[in-house]
Amino acid sequence: MSLLVVGSIAYDTVETPFGKVEDSLGGSALYFSAAASLFGPVNVVGVVGSDFDASKISFLKKRGVNLDGLYMESGKTFRWGGRYYEDMNKRETLFTYLNVFERFQPRIPETYQHSEYIFLANIDPELQLQVLDQIEKPKLVVLDTMNFWINGKRAKLETVLKRSDIIVVNDQEARELTGEFNLIKAIKRIVELGPKSVIVKKGEHGAMLYHAQKFFFAPAFPLEKVVDPTGAGDSFAGGFMGYIAQTDKIDFNTLKKAIIYGSTIASFNVEDFSFNRLKTLTMEEIEQRVKAFKELTTF
Amino acid sequence: MSLLVVGSIAYDTVETPFGKVEDSLGGSALYFSAAASLFGPVNVVGVVGSDFDASKISFLKKRGVNLDGLYMESGKTFRWGGRYYEDMNKRETLFTYLNVFERFQPRIPETYQHSEYIFLANIDPELQLQVLDQIEKPKLVVLDTMNFWINGKRAKLETVLKRSDIIVVNDQEARELTGEFNLIKAIKRIVELGPKSVIVKKGEHGAMLYHAQKFFFAPAFPLEKVVDPTGAGDSFAGGFMGYIAQTDKIDFNTLKKAIIYGSTIASFNVEDFSFNRLKTLTMEEIEQRVKAFKELTTF
Repeated sequence: MSLLVVGSIAYDTVETPFGKVEDSLGGSALYFSAAASLFGPVNVVGVVGSDFDASKISFLKKRGVNLDGLYMESGKTFRWGGRYYEDMNKRETLFTYLNVFERFQPRIPETYQHSEYIFLANIDPELQLQVLDQIEKPKLVVLDTMNFWINGKRAKLETVLKRSDIIVVNDQEARELTGEFNLIKAIKRIVELGPKSVIVKKGEHGAMLYHAQKFFFAPAFPLEKVVDPTGAGDSFAGGFMGYIAQTDKIDFNTLKKAIIYGSTIASFNVEDFSFNRLKTLTMEEIEQRVKAFKELTTF
Repeated sequence: MSLLVVGSIAYDTVETPFGKVEDSLGGSALYFSAAASLFGPVNVVGVVGSDFDASKISFLKKRGVNLDGLYMESGKTFRWGGRYYEDMNKRETLFTYLNVFERFQPRIPETYQHSEYIFLANIDPELQLQVLDQIEKPKLVVLDTMNFWINGKRAKLETVLKRSDIIVVNDQEARELTGEFNLIKAIKRIVELGPKSVIVKKGEHGAMLYHAQKFFFAPAFPLEKVVDPTGAGDSFAGGFMGYIAQTDKIDFNTLKKAIIYGSTIASFNVEDFSFNRLKTLTMEEIEQRVKAFKELTTF
């Protein structure tokens, strides 16, 4: 398996009804890697500032995360601040300091160029295209994006869509991407834009997969306490792609199981701030919760 | 099987992005009966005005709905007017004319008094108590309610809760009933108020069941066109209880299947206005969609 992620590495300041953390480790590339590395090695491409404390990610190295593509630039690391309220499906961004991320130009190290499974985390579609141009022959390209790019860089995003196999969006993004309010119609319209498969993340309402004209639904795992939803989407994507890369198949059954593994890991991630839960998470705990997922939906 | 429903019979005026109907047949007791009668006989208790056209419900009689408890009073039938927008999870009430429903005092006909399965549709908790006082020995009491009663008649509602086995609410109602925002916590708190089992209807996000300390999730059936959501909750309840009454069991497996049958019938109901779809719905169509539900969630 050779799995590649290009995304952000950040220091997050997060406030939720259960507490607050300042300058804690975050970013899509790291949440993805922490999840995917439970299944096998991951190649990371990203940028940090000279203030970045590398010792904080030693737990990822130990899990087989390759950091050859983690570049350090002079300046400060990307910082994001956000607040969540009772309804954790919504969040308020308090600040975004791009810092070194503003001049980020993804360079894929030579050792990564044969990567087969590619995750384009939520970054500028222009950078996503630069990544694809440097990869020889990917088996599967999974794309994440957001409203900011859907509205601001539509044309570039459409080019990325044509070169992607699976897109991961939330319901609002699916609607904005297609102009269709009905989610089922929106999903079918997205397929016309390029990706063969669509995943819609619905937070506490679970996730949907559309593949080969068939739907699959996974609920969110019932949690009595969601401490911090930051990284839920990226740890979901990491679990999803980690499972696929390990299995090395892309059929409907594999994708369905991958959705469940992704949901499972995301459900652990939100139980604590930053990487506190993912750091200690074991495959045994994951398998146990996957089993519980089965019981949740079997009739 | 002996299944009893007490609820409203109404003329609805409904506007959705797909059209408008005026003074069309509606009301919780009728939506419930139309769904439940696909499984077996249903006893209805309700009130209509002298303007009610009985020929409109002949399709229910043909399906084995017993209307001995349908009383005609001088005055006008209950009327409700509402509007739905693109986001069909929300609706705007345009008018509510209680008319004869304002003086409704449920009298249970002698032939109904041995009814074993009771559905208390969303009416004043005082009337729900009057119903329970007239039933000899129910096997299963299922309760529906709404914010209006949760806030306005809390004490009476708590008495009904103590005498109910299952409560059916939406997520907002579960939160208001308990003061807990987290839905999983809210559900567990509801059990402390009386009902052994809790069903949370989440509209397009599906339904959840909590029973014997276990959860079960059913997605909503993926529909490209939701024409009119009116009656979705009551046809869900009708399918749910119709299946249980026919099976005559109240274990977790039966409840899970009942949730799927309820969701299936509700998914048909919203495909057209008023009873247009339920009128012609067959058990064969239902079984086919139940099978599709299984494929939607199996991994």
